[in-house]
Order: sequence, then structure tokens, then C-alpha cells
Amino acid sequence: MSMTERPPQINVAIVGVTGAVGQELGSVLAQSRLPIGRLRVFASERSQGRTIEFAGRQCTCEVLREGCFEGSDLALFSAGKSISSQWCPRAVAEGAWVVDNSSCFRMTPGVPLIVPEINGAELSELNEPGIIANPNCSTIIALMAVTPIHRRVPVRRMVVATYQAASGAGAAAMHELEQQARDFAAGKSLNTTVLGRQCLFNCFSHNSAIGADGYNEEERKLLHETRRIWGDSQVRVSATCVRIPTLRAHAEAINLTLDGSMTAEEARELLSRAPGVRVVDDREGNRFPEPLAATGQDDVLVGRIRADMGQDPGHGLELFAAGDQIRKGAALNAVQIAELIFAPRTALAARA
Amino acid sequence: MSMTERPPQINVAIVGVTGAVGQELGSVLAQSRLPIGRLRVFASERSQGRTIEFAGRQCTCEVLREGCFEGSDLALFSAGKSISSQWCPRAVAEGAWVVDNSSCFRMTPGVPLIVPEINGAELSELNEPGIIANPNCSTIIALMAVTPIHRRVPVRRMVVATYQAASGAGAAAMHELEQQARDFAAGKSLNTTVLGRQCLFNCFSHNSAIGADGYNEEERKLLHETRRIWGDSQVRVSATCVRIPTLRAHAEAINLTLDGSMTAEEARELLSRAPGVRVVDDREGNRFPEPLAATGQDDVLVGRIRADMGQDPGHGLELFAAGDQIRKGAALNAVQIAELIFAPRTALAARA
Repeated sequence: MSMTERPPQINVAIVGVTGAVGQELGSVLAQSRLPIGRLRVFASERSQGRTIEFAGRQCTCEVLREGCFEGSDLALFSAGKSISSQWCPRAVAEGAWVVDNSSCFRMTPGVPLIVPEINGAELSELNEPGIIANPNCSTIIALMAVTPIHRRVPVRRMVVATYQAASGAGAAAMHELEQQARDFAAGKSLNTTVLGRQCLFNCFSHNSAIGADGYNEEERKLLHETRRIWGDSQVRVSATCVRIPTLRAHAEAINLTLDGSMTAEEARELLSRAPGVRVVDDREGNRFPEPLAATGQDDVLVGRIRADMGQDPGHGLELFAAGDQIRKGAALNAVQIAELIFAPRTALAARA
Repeated sequence: MSMTERPPQINVAIVGVTGAVGQELGSVLAQSRLPIGRLRVFASERSQGRTIEFAGRQCTCEVLREGCFEGSDLALFSAGKSISSQWCPRAVAEGAWVVDNSSCFRMTPGVPLIVPEINGAELSELNEPGIIANPNCSTIIALMAVTPIHRRVPVRRMVVATYQAASGAGAAAMHELEQQARDFAAGKSLNTTVLGRQCLFNCFSHNSAIGADGYNEEERKLLHETRRIWGDSQVRVSATCVRIPTLRAHAEAINLTLDGSMTAEEARELLSRAPGVRVVDDREGNRFPEPLAATGQDDVLVGRIRADMGQDPGHGLELFAAGDQIRKGAALNAVQIAELIFAPRTALAARA
């Protein structure tokens, strides 16, 4: 898109406004430098006609119908795979750029899968409205921490163990965890309707479907999305994805095998200069990335940066990262993509 | 020790009876087949003279003093490193076999470091009272899950990420976590005196001292104790030890590199026949090891058994394990060691 084509005001449609990511989109858009013109918000029939506050405005929820994207320059989708599958192509046909937060198009040839700090440059190849896919939260957080290293010395293999928050399974799962804490305090039995098991004082394997190879969808995404975002079909990723009783922000223990040599000091130096990353690595004070500290933050926190004592000297590194999976892992990343499309000169600048 | 030397009744001394492990020792001893004669319990001066129920008996707390182990056949220590350092050698000098739960003697040449199911046979070499060290809880849980595989095809490298319970930092830390849940429910601010940070709805790097290489003590133990227990100075272990807001039982994500080839099915078959291990690996039902299910159990639960898609086919395996770190990770393992010394014919049989 050339400068002259860029509209002075951007009309925006938000699809899926009541979910955890939809709500966060409102807060991120309110802080964005995007010159938002008309703002339309779409939700399910249940919410039709309801007035909500979104991005600092009063908006009335509409339902999706043919033609509803006409006049919109940008549509941000976070309403799940089946809605995206049906409506993203239609939004493009009606003239809007689409940033889709579902997994629907992440592996579709021709649809860029973008983390702005990593491969945002791919967007400059686009000349007309199309779909851009937002990666999965765990992938975004891992790659924000690892890519600055990978760019200097290629990563050959990653072993990842995640510590994922209840809200990754939706706002209802997070509220169930909070309610479990209240019921525990009251001596009541704990309701487990949403997650199917007690989350408070427990942890359990990620609640996505498991394939014949024993890996679940979340783990598979970490492999395939990493390969696509890096444009490296050889990199190996082995993940174990686990939910722990946190409300928000995922943490990840990451073990790297490098195709070359890098010291922990070099990695720390690279990470300290990486946009969107904050190094939290205070060994003496025993202060490292924690989900609570990452909650509500734009930056992915990275620490426990050390040479892997289990690999040949210089060839392995270990890290621990934490990032707000609703913010950088979803809503913020989507808005950053929109900023790269519509306002590339100010995109990726520090936010308000 | 020959059969004829074995006393018909075993007089037992317990050192550190009021802590989390000490309390659990009482419950494990009550279920043990050891023919316990006189039972003496030792605690700090604060508890001196207090009568407590221990192993189903009423016992009066005593303080340690010279000669206090005379007449005891067995002394079980779980009172921390400095007490062990001072009193374990004295207990041996006064004629008792010692099982020490602290880290004091784990690396001392001549002191066996024992997980009965793994290297219990080393005890048969002992002819007179001495110190036997109980490994660290994370090591015991990892090695219960991994050793059956290692015995068939040697493990060359292990990458471990832990999900450790608050009670691993002591009963006070566990109570603080419970109190944080109550205070959260009441809308109060959360007390963080014991762990120095909020544990509820958070996770954080293990609270042990960090060395110049960036590894903390807990992570280092996993390496050095594994090498000692396996008698393999070459095996590589890289651990990231993390506390999560669980009350009890540690979980561990374990990635293995094998010096040979093994399928996931072979590993599952080996583990399903391993004493002290229970395979929980229901992919369709999404049921795998969880800390809550491991709590109070003797067995270490192992699941998520799969061929590592990040390594050459057959050469890598991934597992997820959960075990009660106060029970098999400490008290039960110590009592099993005592059973191997005093009643080897019935040791390691299923418990009441």
C-alpha cells in the first residue's frame, strides 16, 4: 500500500467484542496511534443491540450480515475459528484488511503469519486488502524471547515447557479459577464446569485435542508456527503445554540448541536491545519473569538467561519468559499488525 | 547385616518431628511393616516436653543431647542441614543407622544416596551402622519416571522443567498460599512473609541460591544426584525449577535424549511394570499426571509418554510426571530405605 492510498481515518470493525481478547482489543486500540474513524463492533445474537464501552467509545453491538464490512478499512477478528472461516474472506471481499486472531488461516499459503517485531517486514509485500493471521499466544511469547538470539546464531532445536494461565481457555475459565479460590476459602466444594477439573492448587496438561503422536494442538502450533514465522522448515520444537492456576500471562521454560556458539552474556545483551522484550534477570535478588509482573504489560519478560550446562559449552542456552497472552499474545500483536499496515512510520513505537 | 544380627524389634529415633516431612514420617511409619519397638521423637527446644501423636502413638518431644541415640537402632533425620551435620555422625557413633533427609551428606563419598527402587541394592554392601542419604524430592520424582527407561536404553541428556508445590519450601509456605486464597476471597491484601512474593495466581523461579553459572541449588541437585544415583558421571541434566501455586506434589516435564532407540510404546510398557510408578496416560480423556491426583499417593504418576518430535526418530522421549514430594520425595523414601536395612524381605511391597 503506498502512502497516497492510506486513508486519513481508518474505519474499524471488531468481530468478537465480548470475549477476553475482544475486551483487550478495546483497551489496546484506545492507546493506539491509529486514527480510528467509524468503529463498529460485532458480537453474537445474544448481545445484539447492547451498548458497550469499547476503546473509550459507546458502541452498539451488531450481528454479522452480508455487506456489514462495506466501508470498513480494517476488521479485527477474535471470535473463533468457525466465524473466521466464514467471515474473514467476506470482509476482504468487502474491502477490509483483516487481522485474524483464530488459528483458521495460520497455515494457509499466502496468508502472512506475523509477529511485527520479528517478521513485520513481510507486510510491505501486500498491495491490497487481505487476511493476516495472528500467531498463537504461546508461540508469540516464545519467539519474542528467542528470535533475537536466532537472528544472530540460528536455533536448531527448542525444548519448551509452558506455564499457561486459565484465561488462555477463555474468560469463563479464569472466573472459574477465581471462584474456586472463593469456594476454597468458604469451605465449599469447587465447581469445575468450565475446565473439567480443579484448577486451583493444581496443574494439568493443556486442554486441546491430542493427536496420534501424543502431542496436543497447542504443542503442535509452537512447532509449525515457529517454522512459518522464521521461514525455517528445519527448526525443531518440542513442547509440553501445561495449565497452572494463574489468571493471566503465560510463562515458558525454554531450552535452546544453537547451530553455532553464543554466551549467556551475548544473549542477555541482544535481548536487552530487542524491541518488545524486557530482561528481568536479577540472580542475586532472585527476581525473574513472573506471570503477575507480566500481566497488563506490553513487553515479554525474559530472564534465567544461562548457558545450558547439559550441552557442549556455548551451544546451548536456557531462558525463562513470561508475557501477557491476552495482550502481546493476542490483542496487542493484532493492533501492532494493523499499525504496520496503516501507520508503519509510528508502528512499534513505545505505547502510551 | 546378616539375618541373625537383625533385632526383633527396632528402636527408632525421629529427629525433626514437627516439620512437613517429620509429620509425614509418622503417617508412613504407622503403615510400615517395620517392627517398631521404642519410639523417641526429637524437636527443637520450643517443643520440648510437648506430647504429640506420632505413628499412632503418644510421644513426648525431647531435645537432642549427647547419648540420646544410645539404644536406638534407627534414626530418621529431617531437621535441616546444620542439625544433620552435627548429629548424624553422633547417632552413628552411638550405634544407630541413620537415614538423613537433608542435603548434608548426599555428595559425601561413602554415604550411599538411595532411591530403593533404583539403587537399593547398594545397601546390601553395608555391614554396620552408617549414614544413608535421601535424595532431593525433585530428583526422586524424576528418576522414578526415567530410570526404567535408562536401564533399558541409557539416557544421555535430560531437560527438566519443574512445577513445584509451595510445601516444598516448608509447611509455612503452604499455609501462606492457603491464606493468600482466603485473603483474595475476602478482598484483603495478601501476606507474602514466607516466600517473599505472591504465590497465589503466580509462579516463580525456585527460591534457592543461584550460582555464577545461573543455575540454582535445586537445579544443580538434579544433575549431581542423578549422576550419583545412576553411577553415571556422563549423563547431562539441564533443569529449570519453578514454584507454582500448588499445595503439595511436584510435577515435572521431562525431555530425554537416548543413547539408542526406544519407542513410546516400549517406554509405556516398561513404566507400567516399574515398582512405585503408575502410568496415567489417557490421551482420549485428556487425563495425565496432576499434582492433586499425586497428593498422598505412594506412586509417582507418569504420562504424556511420547516420542520427541524434535529429535531423530526413536532417540528422544518426552514424559510428564507428578509425585508427592513429601511422601515419595522424602518421608516414604526414607522409610523404604529403613525397611531395606531392617526388613529387606518385605521392603518395597505394596503398602497398607
